[in-house]
Amino acid sequence: MSTPIASLDTPAALVDVPRMQRNIQRMQQRMNSLGVRLRPHVKTSKCLPVIQAQIAAGASGVTVSTLKEAEHCFNQGISDVLYAVAIAPGKLSQALALRRAGCHLSVLTDSVQGAQAIVAFAKEHGERLRIWIEVDCDGHRSGLAAEDPALIDVARILIEGGLQLRGVMTHAGSSYELDNPEALQALAEQERALCVRAAQRIRDAGMACPDVSIGSTPTALSALNLDGVTEVRAGVYVFFDLVMHNIGVCQADELALSVLTTVIGHQQDKGWIITDAGWMAMSRDRGTQRQRHDFGYGQVCTETGEWIEGALVTGANQEHGIVTLGGADSADLATRFPIGSRLRILPNHACATGAQFPDYHALDADGAVHTWSRLHGW
Amino acid sequence: MSTPIASLDTPAALVDVPRMQRNIQRMQQRMNSLGVRLRPHVKTSKCLPVIQAQIAAGASGVTVSTLKEAEHCFNQGISDVLYAVAIAPGKLSQALALRRAGCHLSVLTDSVQGAQAIVAFAKEHGERLRIWIEVDCDGHRSGLAAEDPALIDVARILIEGGLQLRGVMTHAGSSYELDNPEALQALAEQERALCVRAAQRIRDAGMACPDVSIGSTPTALSALNLDGVTEVRAGVYVFFDLVMHNIGVCQADELALSVLTTVIGHQQDKGWIITDAGWMAMSRDRGTQRQRHDFGYGQVCTETGEWIEGALVTGANQEHGIVTLGGADSADLATRFPIGSRLRILPNHACATGAQFPDYHALDADGAVHTWSRLHGW
Repeated sequence: MSTPIASLDTPAALVDVPRMQRNIQRMQQRMNSLGVRLRPHVKTSKCLPVIQAQIAAGASGVTVSTLKEAEHCFNQGISDVLYAVAIAPGKLSQALALRRAGCHLSVLTDSVQGAQAIVAFAKEHGERLRIWIEVDCDGHRSGLAAEDPALIDVARILIEGGLQLRGVMTHAGSSYELDNPEALQALAEQERALCVRAAQRIRDAGMACPDVSIGSTPTALSALNLDGVTEVRAGVYVFFDLVMHNIGVCQADELALSVLTTVIGHQQDKGWIITDAGWMAMSRDRGTQRQRHDFGYGQVCTETGEWIEGALVTGANQEHGIVTLGGADSADLATRFPIGSRLRILPNHACATGAQFPDYHALDADGAVHTWSRLHGW
Repeated sequence: MSTPIASLDTPAALVDVPRMQRNIQRMQQRMNSLGVRLRPHVKTSKCLPVIQAQIAAGASGVTVSTLKEAEHCFNQGISDVLYAVAIAPGKLSQALALRRAGCHLSVLTDSVQGAQAIVAFAKEHGERLRIWIEVDCDGHRSGLAAEDPALIDVARILIEGGLQLRGVMTHAGSSYELDNPEALQALAEQERALCVRAAQRIRDAGMACPDVSIGSTPTALSALNLDGVTEVRAGVYVFFDLVMHNIGVCQADELALSVLTTVIGHQQDKGWIITDAGWMAMSRDRGTQRQRHDFGYGQVCTETGEWIEGALVTGANQEHGIVTLGGADSADLATRFPIGSRLRILPNHACATGAQFPDYHALDADGAVHTWSRLHGW
């Protein structure tokens, strides 16, 4: 059933739908067995059919990285939305409009300043916004440490300000730097324990803290127990990518996103195959650069998706990719990979590569291709 | 006149229109004085008002990196279009449709295989396509060496196949690796001399080769003479960026593209300011990483555009930027850069950062803001 793929212009972002469905099932079943809800992070796909497949499999609401994603989900009937970036005061009006339209949007803060701004806005508009407090479990980025005195201050400001404290949330982003199961299990436990501890401190101070939300794909797939946690957020598991493969949380046959490209030239002396998938298609993400295996700008596969061992995109200009075969024989490139022949490239980072494309081309098991649009911008 | 900027949601891609106009004038005047036509590469902006400003200043046609850009320009009355990526056979139908609609599109090849495919297609459809042959002047990417015997073979295949050989073209992409005027002048001369030599070889073989097209922003701004050259292509000069600043071909007050961002948090212990411009806004481009000054993911400026010396975006997640102040005093970050305050970030690479946004927000000298849409995808 290669005809539909053959009709696609390149570069094109392909989604292997059976793999995606298996990835969704795998994560959902894991969360079910651990006794927590799954709230997928839709920043990876930004694509409604993907999100709908996650909801159909049992997900409880969504996590978003922009209010545009929130609006998009809400307009399609997905109401329980967590905007998981500390909200800028300038975005509160947009959040309020969503709330007033009926969206059960909740937003995030991690500071006294931020909490005060939200309270002031909510009082001005007479609205009882729902808020999460972000906890820092690994020094990765944002959030208040579980033992920070300010955690209690922020909770008190929110609750005394008339807001609904929905709970505490954290993201063990440093899991991307690990690549062995024991370290991942330890970080997953740290993520769980510190977020539960933060909730407990708020409760011990006499305030309600109903929810405890944690998550990253590597820790979600590594945690041995999630006692005290109510929900997990994860995003990239829906497609996986080479970064996740290096971390060790997925197999090669679980990588669901690839870029279809056409050979447009050769530099035989250098062992280069030139393709039409440059960084505009792959993105500039070099997430595997410091991992156990550096995949350059991507792993090269045949048109039907078999890895060509050692073949990588080793260079990228805007609309040119440079493919080298690694240790393999580089003779007769123009005969073996003629101009017009096609390859598939597995990306380092599915979130970044997907963002380069207005649409995915979704390949069903029967070879049918569907065009799935995705969001761009804010 | 800060009101209009203050009303923008963040992150937003800002174009300083007076700077852009000066950049356009500078390059156009340089090409006029060197006696060559300028064919701007529109892959940088992918934005009609920018392209129209280049045409209004005297540009002769455009260079494009995708056929979507070609269609967009042609639909707006810009007819002389060079598609400067060796054409994949699968894209010839789209090129033909543009030609038949009246677009003076020319396309590119750098191989016997490619030339044969174009000739076969042209014969099948009875169309006299216009073709350039790509020359490799610096081992950077694609093209045939000026002395390669295949250069004459390709020219002969095209001409005997009934096509119009428009000329030879090259791009000294390795200029991005240089940072001193003498080396840039030497590379510019190499680019000129080798492309002129390739044209001469074709002419010496008894074939017409009317045009000689060269260019990259650094070499275009460094060349001392362009004897034998008929046109120059350059793209990023329209906005410039930190990579160009490191190369030494622009001043800080010529950088016309920046990203407006809002402070959303702090990690005072680490000296971090957290913003809402992560890699989704800045792109993952780290083009300054191996240059004389590594700007991380961007140089931080005040909301009105003054550089904050030493302040860089040193980390980026999808929707979070991490700003550090460098050697400067990092005390009281939350007081000095409160949540909700705004910064502007100068990007490493204007082509990559622009591509993350559906629109630019163009700032006139009088403070008025216009929304300029840009192309996304293929």
